[in-house]
Amino acid sequence: MNSTSLQDLPQWHSLIKCAERISLPENHLKYLVESRDRLRRFSLKGGGIFLDFSRQRVDAETMGLLFELAEARDLKNKFRKMMSGQIVNTTENRPALHTACRDFSSRDIRVEGRNILPEIEEQRRLIKQFAGDVHSGKIKGSTGKRFTSVVVIGIGGSYLGTQFVSTALDAYADRGISIHYLANVDVHNFGDIIRRIDPETTLWIIISKSYTTPETLANTNLAYHYMKSRGLDPSRHTVTVTAKGSPGDDPSNPVLASFNMFDYIGGRYSVSSAVGGVPLSLFLGYEVFEAFLYGAEEMDIHAAQAPVCENLPLTAAMISVWNNNFLHYPAQGIIPYASPLAKLAPHIQQLTMESNGKSVGQDGAAVDVETGTIIFGEPGTNAQHSFFQLAHQGRPFPIDFIGVVNPQYDQFETLTKGVTNHQELWANLISQPMALAKGKSDDNPAKCFSGNRPSSTILLNELSPADIGRLLSFYESKTVFEAFVWGINPFDQFGVELGKTMASDIRNAMAERNQDSRHGFDTADPISKYFLDTLFSGHL
Amino acid sequence: MNSTSLQDLPQWHSLIKCAERISLPENHLKYLVESRDRLRRFSLKGGGIFLDFSRQRVDAETMGLLFELAEARDLKNKFRKMMSGQIVNTTENRPALHTACRDFSSRDIRVEGRNILPEIEEQRRLIKQFAGDVHSGKIKGSTGKRFTSVVVIGIGGSYLGTQFVSTALDAYADRGISIHYLANVDVHNFGDIIRRIDPETTLWIIISKSYTTPETLANTNLAYHYMKSRGLDPSRHTVTVTAKGSPGDDPSNPVLASFNMFDYIGGRYSVSSAVGGVPLSLFLGYEVFEAFLYGAEEMDIHAAQAPVCENLPLTAAMISVWNNNFLHYPAQGIIPYASPLAKLAPHIQQLTMESNGKSVGQDGAAVDVETGTIIFGEPGTNAQHSFFQLAHQGRPFPIDFIGVVNPQYDQFETLTKGVTNHQELWANLISQPMALAKGKSDDNPAKCFSGNRPSSTILLNELSPADIGRLLSFYESKTVFEAFVWGINPFDQFGVELGKTMASDIRNAMAERNQDSRHGFDTADPISKYFLDTLFSGHL
Repeated sequence: MNSTSLQDLPQWHSLIKCAERISLPENHLKYLVESRDRLRRFSLKGGGIFLDFSRQRVDAETMGLLFELAEARDLKNKFRKMMSGQIVNTTENRPALHTACRDFSSRDIRVEGRNILPEIEEQRRLIKQFAGDVHSGKIKGSTGKRFTSVVVIGIGGSYLGTQFVSTALDAYADRGISIHYLANVDVHNFGDIIRRIDPETTLWIIISKSYTTPETLANTNLAYHYMKSRGLDPSRHTVTVTAKGSPGDDPSNPVLASFNMFDYIGGRYSVSSAVGGVPLSLFLGYEVFEAFLYGAEEMDIHAAQAPVCENLPLTAAMISVWNNNFLHYPAQGIIPYASPLAKLAPHIQQLTMESNGKSVGQDGAAVDVETGTIIFGEPGTNAQHSFFQLAHQGRPFPIDFIGVVNPQYDQFETLTKGVTNHQELWANLISQPMALAKGKSDDNPAKCFSGNRPSSTILLNELSPADIGRLLSFYESKTVFEAFVWGINPFDQFGVELGKTMASDIRNAMAERNQDSRHGFDTADPISKYFLDTLFSGHL
Repeated sequence: MNSTSLQDLPQWHSLIKCAERISLPENHLKYLVESRDRLRRFSLKGGGIFLDFSRQRVDAETMGLLFELAEARDLKNKFRKMMSGQIVNTTENRPALHTACRDFSSRDIRVEGRNILPEIEEQRRLIKQFAGDVHSGKIKGSTGKRFTSVVVIGIGGSYLGTQFVSTALDAYADRGISIHYLANVDVHNFGDIIRRIDPETTLWIIISKSYTTPETLANTNLAYHYMKSRGLDPSRHTVTVTAKGSPGDDPSNPVLASFNMFDYIGGRYSVSSAVGGVPLSLFLGYEVFEAFLYGAEEMDIHAAQAPVCENLPLTAAMISVWNNNFLHYPAQGIIPYASPLAKLAPHIQQLTMESNGKSVGQDGAAVDVETGTIIFGEPGTNAQHSFFQLAHQGRPFPIDFIGVVNPQYDQFETLTKGVTNHQELWANLISQPMALAKGKSDDNPAKCFSGNRPSSTILLNELSPADIGRLLSFYESKTVFEAFVWGINPFDQFGVELGKTMASDIRNAMAERNQDSRHGFDTADPISKYFLDTLFSGHL
């Protein structure tokens, strides 16, 4: 089964008909939601979370066909193959084993005949010990002071997932350690961080699988110069998270500790590996990181085992395909009604858009349906006062609302207009999906709401480490299920290569100019030459 | 001239033909950019910034027709009417005079016969004096300590613009005052802030035009309770920015100072009024805020006076219309290659999507072309390692790249691979638009880049206060120019009302339940009832 045959499937044809039917005026969401058992029929609980898709533009026949399509594309079997270590990243000839990072079962997962769970467990053991030694003060900086800040040097998948989790669980940070992210090669990022840290008490975590990422190398170079200029020994302020045998895992370049990344875990799926494990254990404590992993494992097991029609990430993926390919929505909002989830949307933006923004199937043929959508979002209610005007009266886009039953702070019970702030937040969380779905007519056209705007609502019990793990796994699994429908590879990212190659040429030209001020940029195209000349002249 | 006639304009018809022509294989961007004078013909300098649209999918004929369309829609005249105080916000029967906040000319701008520049100037004078008194220590908290933190309580337009500017100019913050934003009614937002401030040295700035915004009132209530619980006098820790005569401007509710908002400035356009002026002057100093205003004024004058075909925001607006209505891109990325501009995209997201996410023209008739687009973005190079896979090989969307010739930090000159970090950043800024435009063929389909993906590049000399003002004004003017083409009102936001009304009903039901635990939610629809029951039960 490959991507080219997708549109030939009978379910695909039937779903096109479904989309026509669901677009008739009598199937407007305002009518669909009137059914008394709408929520019961179009919601699921599993893996510790609740998924309400009653405000999606679907009916029973649509869902039935979507689940048939999931079966026809063999989604669950592909998912289990992924979890068991088969080569699912075909273009790079690798397995994709992020789920192994939180597999606490005693089974074997074999890669090239070797069970890899022990090497993952070993990394966790090393992380636990290292974090403990930092927290106890056994490991200190080169001037004998305890560490109070960690700076993660890493970009893309080397920090976005970690940033999502550290922001979500900031209320749990009680180890006296602050966390900072030095991702961008932009010196403003570096300059801003060194205003906020004390170099004597700062530990730098350099994260790069290949240890060749230009941004990460340049920032590491700056950090080393900075430490040396302050009389510090960088080898006692630095750890690396990198592939075995990379330049970052080189005994001639000593560091406090070096943790391993593995080929079978891609950057954007790596937060449950040492990539997230090292900084999160330092910031939050190893136990919090482990609780997060257990939550992710629970959802992984649900994704692998729950029947198709009871499977939360699979159902969410099929609705995504429906919204994308049959209702033709180009974008998707992620709106958590919980400020600590402020970095969820940027993480899922990378996870989804880098995984599924593809034009070519696993078989090398062009995919002739739309694949990944544009993901964006901000926390609610903030978003209501920002871009929800467009969501209600402009170009429609589906939304994932996310709610949390119990907040991390339960001590603020002051009532305003008779409700707590948390209740006020929920009054909005409850109202927005319904307002988008139902709309409202009015004699004044400017006050008309066309409605019929789809959304799902995901509920978590709380924002515990385990719940954050569940939410992460939910979106990771949803993403790969979507890719399995489209027949694309969600684990490669060849689309980032061309820009890198071209930047390398420009960098070389700049380096020549730095060496010799007479060097012109005449070999560059005229547009690039203009920009180069402007930069070196210092003004517009 | 109204929105309904838009599609009947001869230019509209010709532009449809243009779009067909530009979509032919021989007009792929990779050929267009080959022309030696491409950049000269498709770039502009003015108002202190540079706009390169050579990588947009336009040719001379397209631009000519777009400028003709701008003339046919009377864009510049409408803009000057706006600046001179005419009623351009017709649904609310008000002028839209954000430009008056940075009008340092000595002319009159009359609203209902009264010159309003003096009242704006008076607010600036009050802000300057108040900020000076706080900085000098003349005004202190109720326990006699100097203020070291300000917390802005305000949501949407009451903080997004200020947050953009304070983040952009953070390097200028030398007044010993930190700034925090309490926007979300979510208690996590409040809980997080009070972990970071000392209440004795904190000044709260409550910003709401009507002083009825539920989120702002609830957060103010929490803040007052919190101050009182710490033995502080809230009246000596609070200022308000609100409409004259609102409940926030009531002598029976004393505060340190109350600053005025005016009906003729809408929230999302208000950062150059007291809404931005009070917090920014406290955080950065009044002089920095004033320099920001002067930069904005320079771009306002450019937008009002430069001929259509030399006018940067107008040209950018016409390209936006082209991309939206003729090339049918549903979304637009904003990618600043400058970390301090991290909050530009969220601000422009609100500015554009709340202004132009409309379905109805000024005349009350439905607009039959697509209006506002979906705006999203993150700083580069971060975005390259996040969602640029999709930008290069998935669903195409136009991008505004933004570059800064001179960084705020110029002391980091360490070379990596022969270049500074700032040069490395620019190597990427130069490469990405060209890679998107040109693409690349390859025998391996997974490594093919279709190219033909449009972008503009905006350059600033530096990230000075004046440059930030220029950039703000550029996007504000671009937004209203787009609206003038479509014939919609970019100053109202009726689309946010339905959700508010529905939330009010839910809030009342919750308040009743808080009063009487026997109160059920049987009058709510079954879906909302489920969510209410879940919240009050405390678990899924």
